[in-house]
This record gives sequence, structure tokens and C-alpha cells, in this order.
Amino acid sequence: MSPIRVYLEGLRAGRRQLPTEAAHYLARVQRLAAGDRFVAFDPEAVLEADATLLHVSRQGSECELAVPRAARRAELGVTLMQAAGKGDKLEEVVRAATALGAAEVRVVVSERSVARPGSERGARLRAVAVAAARQSGRGDVPRITGPLSLLDALGELSGLTQALRICLHPRAALPLADAIAGSAAGGEALLLIGPEGGFSDAELASIEQSGFCLAALGPLTLRTELAAIAALGAFAARLPGAPDRL
Amino acid sequence: MSPIRVYLEGLRAGRRQLPTEAAHYLARVQRLAAGDRFVAFDPEAVLEADATLLHVSRQGSECELAVPRAARRAELGVTLMQAAGKGDKLEEVVRAATALGAAEVRVVVSERSVARPGSERGARLRAVAVAAARQSGRGDVPRITGPLSLLDALGELSGLTQALRICLHPRAALPLADAIAGSAAGGEALLLIGPEGGFSDAELASIEQSGFCLAALGPLTLRTELAAIAALGAFAARLPGAPDRL
Repeated sequence: MSPIRVYLEGLRAGRRQLPTEAAHYLARVQRLAAGDRFVAFDPEAVLEADATLLHVSRQGSECELAVPRAARRAELGVTLMQAAGKGDKLEEVVRAATALGAAEVRVVVSERSVARPGSERGARLRAVAVAAARQSGRGDVPRITGPLSLLDALGELSGLTQALRICLHPRAALPLADAIAGSAAGGEALLLIGPEGGFSDAELASIEQSGFCLAALGPLTLRTELAAIAALGAFAARLPGAPDRL
Repeated sequence: MSPIRVYLEGLRAGRRQLPTEAAHYLARVQRLAAGDRFVAFDPEAVLEADATLLHVSRQGSECELAVPRAARRAELGVTLMQAAGKGDKLEEVVRAATALGAAEVRVVVSERSVARPGSERGARLRAVAVAAARQSGRGDVPRITGPLSLLDALGELSGLTQALRICLHPRAALPLADAIAGSAAGGEALLLIGPEGGFSDAELASIEQSGFCLAALGPLTLRTELAAIAALGAFAARLPGAPDRL
């Protein structure tokens, strides 16, 4: 069994109060009792610490933390540039991107983006990423950035040297696996996924001018969030498992 | 824009009544009027036909079908052997597997399967597959088979010659992309995905004895349905797009 993991900010060795949410998760959801062990993790600081539950009550709950250690960073190296879609699909994408090891999710807004998410949505997406990091055993979280317009996002890339830049496109003759085969597994890459309805021809011209190659995930039409998840799967499939994992 | 697609059983050239559900979808959801065109498809027969809506009313709706033609079969060649999980996760897997082009979804029940789906669930899963085929532009549907026990499913394979047999495992040293790199893109493959909690050691021994190699999608822990979707993404990533698609 993997250890039970709980998000705690500001890890330091010693005795400390548990926030209500963490205490609830340990005592009610996971049914730990005083003396039981768990792992506290702070994915923003990329730290984790062995912990012991000391007591749980309505008046307050406490744990004892060992000296924090560096947590395992995800190794995928992919920045997912995801055009915003309808409803809560971005949450689905962030959840899967975190579990698959993406380095960053950069939300972009394109001509045909249906939803134009406000920046206040970032806090919600970061909470989704922390929860997905806990479940997947990941010691860090992807950066969640944006929303910014596609053209601004492309503009930010000029002068940068990220070698591999791929935009998924359903009519591309190049299979995604061939597009990534020449690069190092886990190396830096930008993966751009269009919204429902795709990018406009003008947008595609700008995308190609910015050094992106167009690549496909087969001949079928994929929902934008399925395209993102399946494409990240093709990247993650190049990494070995964790032989030392419990 | 892709043509509007509607599921109709038993395609034949000529005038015909539309079932209530199809008429509702065309007139209310897609807002077609008399004279508008659509494509009728029967993914179980792998046929489709150009169609014209003739009239829609509460008393009955009719369309005119052209001569049916063979529809495009999916080209992935992968049979997904999916251990049953909790809740409605199988629906999520079938939806994505259809859109990514899987040839078959074979539901298996293993020691740690949480849900043991009755065979009556097959009709529901087939409906999910038909809807996903419509949305993805796929002209056929994956076969949905099972549930059967893991050992029976492995027994059925003895004597068969499917060359590539892969079981995902989070501790495998072999990356999935390396496991599939030697096979033809779109070629026949069996992809076995464990339930929440994984396969037992005894099950893994039987799986390896049946000719499966263990492969990983990176070092992180994936929910079973995310593992299935991401792994199918790694297979689909080897196929080109559809340059002739509208």
C-alpha cells in the first residue's frame, strides 16, 4: 500500500496543529487513530515529511513531523498549452496532466474558445492539481498559468529555445509518436491543444511560424480534453515505471 | 464542419420513418429543417448513407437515404482488456477507447475488482460506444465483450497468435512506448489494465505466463481509467491524421 498523503503548507520538523480539513481527511476519510503514520507533503515547496498523528478532537488536532526531505519531481518536461473549453473540462485536463507528470498547464484563449476563464479560476485549478498530486504520488505540482491569448502565448516563446514544439491537429500527416521520437524522453516540450472546433487558419499560420509542427493522434475526432490526455499519455509512455515504489 | 451524424439501424436506400430519438436529435438538438442534409450511420454494420430530412412532426418524421456505403473502420487494432472498476468508470473508458479507435473492449473481473458488472451492463456500454463513434467520426464501434474472469480471459488467449501482449504495471522498468515500438502501427495488440489496487502477485504470474510483458506509463500512480486512456493515446499517437477530413 502507498502511504497516506496529506497536504500541509510550510513543513518543519516538530509538533504542529493540523488544519481542520487535514484532520478530517486523516481521521474520518482514512480512519487513522492517534499514533498512526502518514506522509505530509507540500508540493509547491516540493517537500515531504514522515508524520505521526498525535491526537484528533474538535478542539484541535496535532501531529509530529520528522525532518522534511525533497520530494520526487515529475519528470515529463511537457508544458501543456491548452485552449480553454466549455464547462469544467479544464479541471479534467489539469487532474490528468498532474497525474501524468506535466511540468506546466498554460491556459490559452483562442478565437474559438467557448469559455474565457477569469484569472480567479487559477486557485481552483491549483487545488485540483494538489489533489491529483496527492493521489498520484507526485511530490510537486505543475505550474498553472494563464489565461492569456494565443498570440500573447506565442509571443512569449519568441527568443526561447525549447526545442520540441507540437500542436495537435486532426488532419496532420505526421503521427505524434514520430514527432516526439527524436527528442529525449522527459525532455522539455511544448504541446499545444486547440479548443472545440480547432484553431482558425490564421491562428494555425501563427502557430507554425512560432516553430510548432502539426501532429496527429490518429484519424478520429477527439474532444479537446481527450486529445490533451491521450497526447500526454504518448509522452508519459516514454518513461519507465518506479521499481522502488511500494 | 463535419457532417451531422445520426445512428440508424438497417440502412437501405429510399424513404423511411425516423425513430423519435433520431428525429428529436436532428430537429431539436441540431435544429435541422426539411431539406437539410445529414449522414445516417450504422456502426454495427459499418455502413453510412447520405440522408435528407423530409419532414418532422409529432405524427412522424421521415428522411430519404442514398445508397449506403462502407464506413471507415477504426485502425488501431488494440483490444483493451480492462479490469472492472468502481461506479461508472467503465463508461468513461469505453467512450475514450471508441474515440481513440480501439477494436474491442473486453471487461475482465480480477481479485481486486471493486465492481463486478452484470452482463446486462453490456447494452449500456454499447450505447456509450455508439454515441462516441458518432462524435468521433468513427464508422464502426468496438466490440464490447465480457465480463469474464481474468483467468478465463487469459485461457481464451492460449493457442492464439496475437503477437503483442502488454500489461500496464506501475513498477515496470520497460516504458510502454518501447514495448510497442517494434510492432506495426495499428497492428493487433492486447492491452491489459488492472483495477484500482492492481493485480495480485498470483495474477501477475499468470499474466506473464500468458505472454504479456509488463510496461509502464512513467513513475506516477494512475487511476485505472486514466491509465487505459493514456495508454491508448500512446497507441493512437502512432497513426497519422485524416488529411481528407472536412
